[in-house]
Amino acid sequence: MFSTSTYKNRRQALRQQLAGGILLFPGNIENPINFEHNTYPFRQDSTFLYYFGLAVPSLVGLMDLDENKEIIFGCEATIDDLVWTGPQESLSDRAARVGVLETAPFTSLVHYIERAIARNRPIHFLPPYQSVSKLLLSELLQTTPSALEPSVSFIRAVAQQRSIKEEQEVAEIERAVSVSTEMHLLTMRLAKSGMKESELVHAIQAFAGNRDCSLAYPPIITVHGQILHNQVRSNPLKNGDMVLVDAGAETAMGYAGDLTRTFPVAATFDSQQRAMYQIVLDAITGASEMLRPGVSFKSIHLHAAKILVEGLKGLGLMKGDPEEAVQSHAHTLFFQCGLGHLMGLDVHDMEDLGEQYVGYTTDDPKDTQTFGLKSLRLGKPLEAGFVLTVEPGIYIIQDLIDHCKASNRHSDFVNYTELEKFRNFGGIRLEDNFLITPEGHQLLGPDLIKTIDDVESYRSRYV
Amino acid sequence: MFSTSTYKNRRQALRQQLAGGILLFPGNIENPINFEHNTYPFRQDSTFLYYFGLAVPSLVGLMDLDENKEIIFGCEATIDDLVWTGPQESLSDRAARVGVLETAPFTSLVHYIERAIARNRPIHFLPPYQSVSKLLLSELLQTTPSALEPSVSFIRAVAQQRSIKEEQEVAEIERAVSVSTEMHLLTMRLAKSGMKESELVHAIQAFAGNRDCSLAYPPIITVHGQILHNQVRSNPLKNGDMVLVDAGAETAMGYAGDLTRTFPVAATFDSQQRAMYQIVLDAITGASEMLRPGVSFKSIHLHAAKILVEGLKGLGLMKGDPEEAVQSHAHTLFFQCGLGHLMGLDVHDMEDLGEQYVGYTTDDPKDTQTFGLKSLRLGKPLEAGFVLTVEPGIYIIQDLIDHCKASNRHSDFVNYTELEKFRNFGGIRLEDNFLITPEGHQLLGPDLIKTIDDVESYRSRYV
Repeated sequence: MFSTSTYKNRRQALRQQLAGGILLFPGNIENPINFEHNTYPFRQDSTFLYYFGLAVPSLVGLMDLDENKEIIFGCEATIDDLVWTGPQESLSDRAARVGVLETAPFTSLVHYIERAIARNRPIHFLPPYQSVSKLLLSELLQTTPSALEPSVSFIRAVAQQRSIKEEQEVAEIERAVSVSTEMHLLTMRLAKSGMKESELVHAIQAFAGNRDCSLAYPPIITVHGQILHNQVRSNPLKNGDMVLVDAGAETAMGYAGDLTRTFPVAATFDSQQRAMYQIVLDAITGASEMLRPGVSFKSIHLHAAKILVEGLKGLGLMKGDPEEAVQSHAHTLFFQCGLGHLMGLDVHDMEDLGEQYVGYTTDDPKDTQTFGLKSLRLGKPLEAGFVLTVEPGIYIIQDLIDHCKASNRHSDFVNYTELEKFRNFGGIRLEDNFLITPEGHQLLGPDLIKTIDDVESYRSRYV
Repeated sequence: MFSTSTYKNRRQALRQQLAGGILLFPGNIENPINFEHNTYPFRQDSTFLYYFGLAVPSLVGLMDLDENKEIIFGCEATIDDLVWTGPQESLSDRAARVGVLETAPFTSLVHYIERAIARNRPIHFLPPYQSVSKLLLSELLQTTPSALEPSVSFIRAVAQQRSIKEEQEVAEIERAVSVSTEMHLLTMRLAKSGMKESELVHAIQAFAGNRDCSLAYPPIITVHGQILHNQVRSNPLKNGDMVLVDAGAETAMGYAGDLTRTFPVAATFDSQQRAMYQIVLDAITGASEMLRPGVSFKSIHLHAAKILVEGLKGLGLMKGDPEEAVQSHAHTLFFQCGLGHLMGLDVHDMEDLGEQYVGYTTDDPKDTQTFGLKSLRLGKPLEAGFVLTVEPGIYIIQDLIDHCKASNRHSDFVNYTELEKFRNFGGIRLEDNFLITPEGHQLLGPDLIKTIDDVESYRSRYV
């Protein structure tokens, strides 16, 4: 947890952005798995963490801007709880650590909101993503869950504030990225032919756990890297395969790292793999070099796409003018997703608040229709203090190729005959994490090996 | 997955227990952690698994008893999904594997229920434990979440059917228990002074994962075994401590194991530990011997309590007549919880359905007031086919002792002065899993070492 003043200052800054009313911050609960008391690992809501710091289930934070009140609502432990969970710090002691001097039981929250509704006072809340918060808000606000209307001014103020990382946040993210790099090196040491993908998942999970971290998201560890969010982990690793590892640690304070590497199961890449890998490497290098305040991330995304097209053209898989190919979205046959996203307390930072507020501006809104761009989570001009990922890739998705080829799509730019030779190629992604600085950018965490030579020489020590 | 006929037969048997109407089986979803698309590992609802077998998120099963229809509602994958998750089996192919011949999109479910409501047809559902199911049911049934009324006849029929395990279920539970015993042996090999509790957690998690199992519940691995559901795992193991390990595997099909052992960090128990351990060992042995059809589990619980009291009397910590001590609940100062619970697709089997239906009868309902008995999840007479845990323990909870001593509670039976010597003792629990057979009972899984000699001799090979 950061200092008491950190949380007080954050709330003070938020207060100054909003005109008035009541702000509600529902914390997360311990979510049931298969019955109420068998629960998933607790993860506090990130906005609650940001303003109220307490990683404790079943709390609700409240800021009354008009009456200048801050209250945390929750239950005190009973003697029965003592038997099951041991002695617990009191709610008021916990609240005091984040500078909140008033605490109250949940019933008081119900009354507080009832009074506010009776007086027609505005009650602001963010878009709830957990069903339990939807239920809570609809009960408090006496409306149906589908009629809940999150407050745009509240969303914008939180998105603006959380987007610019404090120095202490950057330090915490660096710690997450450092543990993440170690997790990746571990997979590069352990992977061998005959092993199952899942063994690497369990190994990094234990590794992160032993460094007081969890995993920031379900890791993708797969020999079928072309499936973008592959959660199947039952395949054996075979010589000739590449393993795509997309995994990041989350620190105890909730900050994420998010790195991807792709490496051969054999000690070395084969010629196809080597050629494709170099293209993705060129794209991540070229894209990263563009990172600086004022440059839109959408333009960097499109620049990365152009580098990919140029490389694929060199291999004879694409043709025509690379600029035109990107303009007509032909690159999306190989690079179907976005180049990256903001990162912080969430691996996709503030995705719950809505990409239109977090990654785009009103003047240049998100393209929600075009295949490719509709998966780009961040498009707007960068600002110093942003933390983000850069993650280009090439993904050979047989069904997608067949689908496009059948309708003659992108045929001006794609050499479908040549592409047949790569049909079973799979996928490659490389991903690093950066801080945008006033001068440009800074790689977060240690420089995790990435060149072909470095990867092959590291792998050859362990295969 | 079991055979197609398994699921057909189970639904057929259920149908015969109920008079008519529509039965709804909401499956589970991929629950969000900190934003919608960052999700916890998927776990299907156990009742859905039992009747519809598919471990696939966001499905709803429906049985229309009057029109003799069975339908699974869900979404088919789109070309976009293909990019993110790879090719998926169609919903109708999946449904066919569990003998359901009709599938439909969610919108059809809404219309189906609308029509049923318009015709005043009874719609039965079980108590929802996930908020998302509460939301879904309240929308479908056009009522508020708090006004949802689960169907008691449906609950009773499901509880009755799921309580009696099929042979193939017992085999699957044995597999879960076998992996669980290996997890326990692993902790007994790995534990050493200086290690953190959490290292053992991560080790068994990886071990289970590599055997295609998950953990059936958050494991309790602690040097403070007196805290019954201790989820703090940051303590170092020290010579002189005991480690309490309460952990079980869950197979890919969803069946649980649930075992507890307590062992010394040093190779051997000290004299206090040895004496207390023997008492708990006597209790688990004595209780297990009573397991047979017709005997109420509550009587076995009280018998175990009496064995504990006799042992504690032998140590000078209790006094008076053991029978009377148990009648006045004095044993609950040391043994605050229940002796065990049913086990199957849930580690606390069917806890979501309500203990009054699953663990008790209308004639002999649960005692929900008395400290100790109110935590006994199973009280009713045993039947052949039940699978359950037996898990006595002694827990020295300082705050509870101080609380009782201050009010002179149980002073006829407790020697508070002598008890001071055990103030920092901690806790011991031993837990095994059994099948009730027509003749008596059968230990499930291999016989995991439990006597003082066996534990010390195993530990001494690794310390």
